[in-house]
Amino acid sequence: MRNRYFSSDPARNNAALALYDSVANLPLICPHGHVDPRLFAEADYHFGSPVDLLIIPDHYIFRMLYSQGVSLDELGIPARASVPGSSGGDLNERDHREIWRRVCANWPLFRATPTGIWLRDELAEVFGIHLKLNSRNADAIYDAIEERLSRAEFRPRALFERFNIEALATTDAATDTLEHHQAIRESGWGGRIIPTFRPDAVVNIDNAVWLQNIELLGDIAGIDIRSFSTYIQALEQRRAAFKAMGATATDHAALTAYTELLSAADAEAIFARALKGEATVKDAARFTGHMLIEMARMSSEDGLVMQLHIGSWRNHNPQVFARYGPDMGADIPIRSEFTKNLKSLLDRFGNHPDLRLALFNLDETAYSRELAPLAGHYPILRLGPPWWFFDSWLGMTRFLDDVVETAGIYNLAGFNDDTRAYPSIPTRHDVWRRVCADWLAGQLVRGFIDEEDAFEMIRALAYDLAKQTYRLDD
Amino acid sequence: MRNRYFSSDPARNNAALALYDSVANLPLICPHGHVDPRLFAEADYHFGSPVDLLIIPDHYIFRMLYSQGVSLDELGIPARASVPGSSGGDLNERDHREIWRRVCANWPLFRATPTGIWLRDELAEVFGIHLKLNSRNADAIYDAIEERLSRAEFRPRALFERFNIEALATTDAATDTLEHHQAIRESGWGGRIIPTFRPDAVVNIDNAVWLQNIELLGDIAGIDIRSFSTYIQALEQRRAAFKAMGATATDHAALTAYTELLSAADAEAIFARALKGEATVKDAARFTGHMLIEMARMSSEDGLVMQLHIGSWRNHNPQVFARYGPDMGADIPIRSEFTKNLKSLLDRFGNHPDLRLALFNLDETAYSRELAPLAGHYPILRLGPPWWFFDSWLGMTRFLDDVVETAGIYNLAGFNDDTRAYPSIPTRHDVWRRVCADWLAGQLVRGFIDEEDAFEMIRALAYDLAKQTYRLDD
Amino acid sequence: MRNRYFSSDPARNNAALALYDSVANLPLICPHGHVDPRLFAEADYHFGSPVDLLIIPDHYIFRMLYSQGVSLDELGIPARASVPGSSGGDLNERDHREIWRRVCANWPLFRATPTGIWLRDELAEVFGIHLKLNSRNADAIYDAIEERLSRAEFRPRALFERFNIEALATTDAATDTLEHHQAIRESGWGGRIIPTFRPDAVVNIDNAVWLQNIELLGDIAGIDIRSFSTYIQALEQRRAAFKAMGATATDHAALTAYTELLSAADAEAIFARALKGEATVKDAARFTGHMLIEMARMSSEDGLVMQLHIGSWRNHNPQVFARYGPDMGADIPIRSEFTKNLKSLLDRFGNHPDLRLALFNLDETAYSRELAPLAGHYPILRLGPPWWFFDSWLGMTRFLDDVVETAGIYNLAGFNDDTRAYPSIPTRHDVWRRVCADWLAGQLVRGFIDEEDAFEMIRALAYDLAKQTYRLDD
Repeated sequence: MRNRYFSSDPARNNAALALYDSVANLPLICPHGHVDPRLFAEADYHFGSPVDLLIIPDHYIFRMLYSQGVSLDELGIPARASVPGSSGGDLNERDHREIWRRVCANWPLFRATPTGIWLRDELAEVFGIHLKLNSRNADAIYDAIEERLSRAEFRPRALFERFNIEALATTDAATDTLEHHQAIRESGWGGRIIPTFRPDAVVNIDNAVWLQNIELLGDIAGIDIRSFSTYIQALEQRRAAFKAMGATATDHAALTAYTELLSAADAEAIFARALKGEATVKDAARFTGHMLIEMARMSSEDGLVMQLHIGSWRNHNPQVFARYGPDMGADIPIRSEFTKNLKSLLDRFGNHPDLRLALFNLDETAYSRELAPLAGHYPILRLGPPWWFFDSWLGMTRFLDDVVETAGIYNLAGFNDDTRAYPSIPTRHDVWRRVCADWLAGQLVRGFIDEEDAFEMIRALAYDLAKQTYRLDD
Repeated sequence: MRNRYFSSDPARNNAALALYDSVANLPLICPHGHVDPRLFAEADYHFGSPVDLLIIPDHYIFRMLYSQGVSLDELGIPARASVPGSSGGDLNERDHREIWRRVCANWPLFRATPTGIWLRDELAEVFGIHLKLNSRNADAIYDAIEERLSRAEFRPRALFERFNIEALATTDAATDTLEHHQAIRESGWGGRIIPTFRPDAVVNIDNAVWLQNIELLGDIAGIDIRSFSTYIQALEQRRAAFKAMGATATDHAALTAYTELLSAADAEAIFARALKGEATVKDAARFTGHMLIEMARMSSEDGLVMQLHIGSWRNHNPQVFARYGPDMGADIPIRSEFTKNLKSLLDRFGNHPDLRLALFNLDETAYSRELAPLAGHYPILRLGPPWWFFDSWLGMTRFLDDVVETAGIYNLAGFNDDTRAYPSIPTRHDVWRRVCADWLAGQLVRGFIDEEDAFEMIRALAYDLAKQTYRLDD
Repeated sequence: MRNRYFSSDPARNNAALALYDSVANLPLICPHGHVDPRLFAEADYHFGSPVDLLIIPDHYIFRMLYSQGVSLDELGIPARASVPGSSGGDLNERDHREIWRRVCANWPLFRATPTGIWLRDELAEVFGIHLKLNSRNADAIYDAIEERLSRAEFRPRALFERFNIEALATTDAATDTLEHHQAIRESGWGGRIIPTFRPDAVVNIDNAVWLQNIELLGDIAGIDIRSFSTYIQALEQRRAAFKAMGATATDHAALTAYTELLSAADAEAIFARALKGEATVKDAARFTGHMLIEMARMSSEDGLVMQLHIGSWRNHNPQVFARYGPDMGADIPIRSEFTKNLKSLLDRFGNHPDLRLALFNLDETAYSRELAPLAGHYPILRLGPPWWFFDSWLGMTRFLDDVVETAGIYNLAGFNDDTRAYPSIPTRHDVWRRVCADWLAGQLVRGFIDEEDAFEMIRALAYDLAKQTYRLDD
């Protein structure tokens, strides 16, 4: 149905469809996500089985199955190499068709969830498969996906073109060699795939392998990192390398938005303690808080748009982490605070004409209370779209309800899909565009805005704001 | 009106009615509430006057009247025996018809509140009285209720059958003799009335009468409680006794969800201080946090479903408490946190195959931020329905809006009425079933789910999930 | 359109219009706001240019423009006299027509915001100008406003009568001479303009000029303030003077709702330290907390309704504050807590028959969690309407959704416009009346309330509750 998901009120439904139609075919701007650049480095990359493509990399799917008693082993999720018996693989399900059947048998769990909607729409729109996910159809769907994946038109580059992606940014460690990005550039293929500088692993000194990461950073930057100042030099060198490879943005994740400007002496002292493995928990929090300000300073100089993702308690389940490692659906949000925590950064850079800072969080209560008022005042701020659990029909609707009246739409960063599930990208953008069309239609039929406003706003939300925010129009 | 409360959009209204009709006559599962088991112990229990039945036990009603200047004395609420003059009763209104008139005269206060809706629907559906509550109708309604209550068909057991209740759990102190439950069993009457083990009064060492409660506990368990280990034995003994009387669940209330695993030595030391009346405020918080983990451990062994109610500041108004005691409508919610607070418990029991933990809270902000992500990962967790102030049309709708996209519906515990107002039970379940029908109809007409999904989901929400969550199908 | 902003569902839309029509012409009760009494002291007060009237005093407008890179200088906002160069005025735009064009060119920023709706409706309803705000129409609109302002019917007193304002309260420092109020009284003009006692500047001892304010207070009260007790006397004297000038209320702003009853010795000691400029940060918080209780005590004696505004971090942007001073759109909300913070005050005065306390906050999460349960129990409490960023269509709708089910509508304080933008007053009340009509229509068509209820409720929300809460009917 062309008008799926829109309000059932006829007047609003019609208005939503007209708005949606005006942007449905605009190119996709994908300024933040986790697609592996390797997909595009080789012209004939093959995705593997339907389970390799759709299940094993998608923690949205297996967390829900896990919550209802399906083990990760049964879903083919590999245990860490260090786990006893994991190399033998005797626990791990290897029959992908069997895994697929298991997922389909449990698919009712995803009723009324975004994961359920994405996969259904993706099968229909990308794969041309219109069967409902259930036990009865499991084999037929598996066969159909497998058949599609065997075709050249389902190689990542072909899909990139079919998806009409104008630019796609990956997320890359500060120590990444960017070799795949280099290979893409050298391949002569014209798709715009760009890296994003994400230095968390060399910034958070409580990271268990921080010292190793610092060594890697020194190696790749060609700088002997013995002090805070040489560390800063190395980071600046890497930012320049990312920028040279097309990057327009950085990305930073922190448990809280705490920022604090350290004195030069304190920064050196904490850094020295960290190098000796003697930093305290408090050192770590203060250092991260200081580095966010340092990164804002660098962004104000090199023009890379700064993204800040706040509020995810990573690897909350120690048993799952011990056996399977990170990104296993066990990251849980916490309460977030911005008015006080961001103040040190804003005091210094909040009015800077060249800095742009996009904020993301997992605590909806901050939308109307703090984020919209902050974005409706500070020139550097843009609000990122609803993140993670909130990248859903109702989550996005609540976001628009909560922030637009205070911040307007022009302090928003548009949409990004933030996904590692490459073939779901068109569906995710489509849901956002439908939400915006439905929301604006509500505003239009009630007389808050007129048609001229509505059509300009839907275009901004669907396309322009993401492009402008991430400086992809430069 | 058969379609009352549903969305006024015709398509959604029709869909909601069809969904509602499919579950309207299913039996009621009442796995958590505060009905007095005494009602069922005698075959011919009589409720007393309309005011005895509907006003004096219902703090939802008198808190609102109190907020607008009606004194509790005027409503016939008895002062504690220890209050000077209370025995003389000169302040306390004794004329129940006069009280009823006073309530009716003030009934506009309940416009658009769940209390207003419950009583109206209860009068219509249970008592067959279709008059609006106001001064004009006060006497006629009073007379009509009084007439109904005189009939045998309005005895509790008769209503139980008419209400089509499949199982009803009461809430009972760990030290309760369960004599009324015993009497019900011995009476030969077939209604399934089961107890619930609620040990708060022997767990929270800051309770003013904790030492007396411990003596009671020792007496009833036949164990001389001189140490933490004998205390644990006594609790395990009582759980077994409750289970033998049909209990399938325990219930725990705490101001916060804080959990902490104490060392054996610390647990003994705090317990010893408590026995001597020397425990500190911090001791009390740590001990409760430890006991929640102990209770999870016991539930993982004996299979009793663990319920946890978080966030009510009890007896907030010292003047009201001093004169009238607890449960006088002066309990006020506070902010709740789960991601950090529950971690110690989840670290140990979050993945346990035999444990089930149902969470309830009074801070809606935790729904989407913490509770849904936690329930969408940890196998032991189920989310209880909206509690207390949120057991309302909009409260339940916000709950579904906030949690289903992330946790699905199969991580929910279905509905429970949590009431001491026995004759309101059908109405409360009816409102929940209507909310779910309306909510699912919205999902259906917008194309998020199809008809097969919707009809299976309404049945799960109305009936199956409560039965399964509380292991009433074993 | 007479039915603008209402739900597009035809049944609800019709019901909303009928409800709205029943109150659209009721007089306006304006019990809290920031209109300058000077406007009414002179019979022929002239507003100045359209920019003087509509832009320069309105931080709602320029904060949004600032967030998108328009400088405050470009908008004619004067820098503080102490800022170098400000007296020369070389940075500050002086051409008001040019400023107006700049605002109009950027007006798309206000799409779907209350500011955008207010100005559009105000131009149409007050000024009879039906052109859309944009660059094309900028000059025509400017000319039309200028023409209107030249007419006698656009003098403040004439508008007061045309707006059908029954009473308008200003907000005045405890040290204010009330000379404009005196002048209004002596002028013979019959408009009811009354002051409100706002003592923050003499209560918050961390205020940079607190000592000067205390001197002013002593002077105007004719009391030599050398101790806490003489300070209290001076405050009581000023309250009496305000009351004599018609005041029915006081107003208090605090970052948090913290209250604490100090011993007489502690109060004297902190006050003494403050007089010597030696008070600590903690002293300041405790003193404010104690003074809120003192003010409650005074209100319980003199009958002035106490208003409490919680949660705004003032002057968050130090660069903007240094150059332009306070009230520049850089006030940012913080999280609020009431259950614990207000307890000391409620313990003493929560049940007082003569006290009334109206609560306002900027953290929506407290609505359903704390404020509605508190207001649904304590007789002294009334909930103020959604404040500041939440004085918007969706903000008001969420407020009704969140509080009415628990507190009912009779524990609400009705509406107040809280504005310094005098000509926007009718529009703001109109939006509130429309929101309430739309919300009640939703309740009506779904069958929660009947027509009798709905029409009585809309009148209460539009008119009666504000009048009663602020004792304007005495």
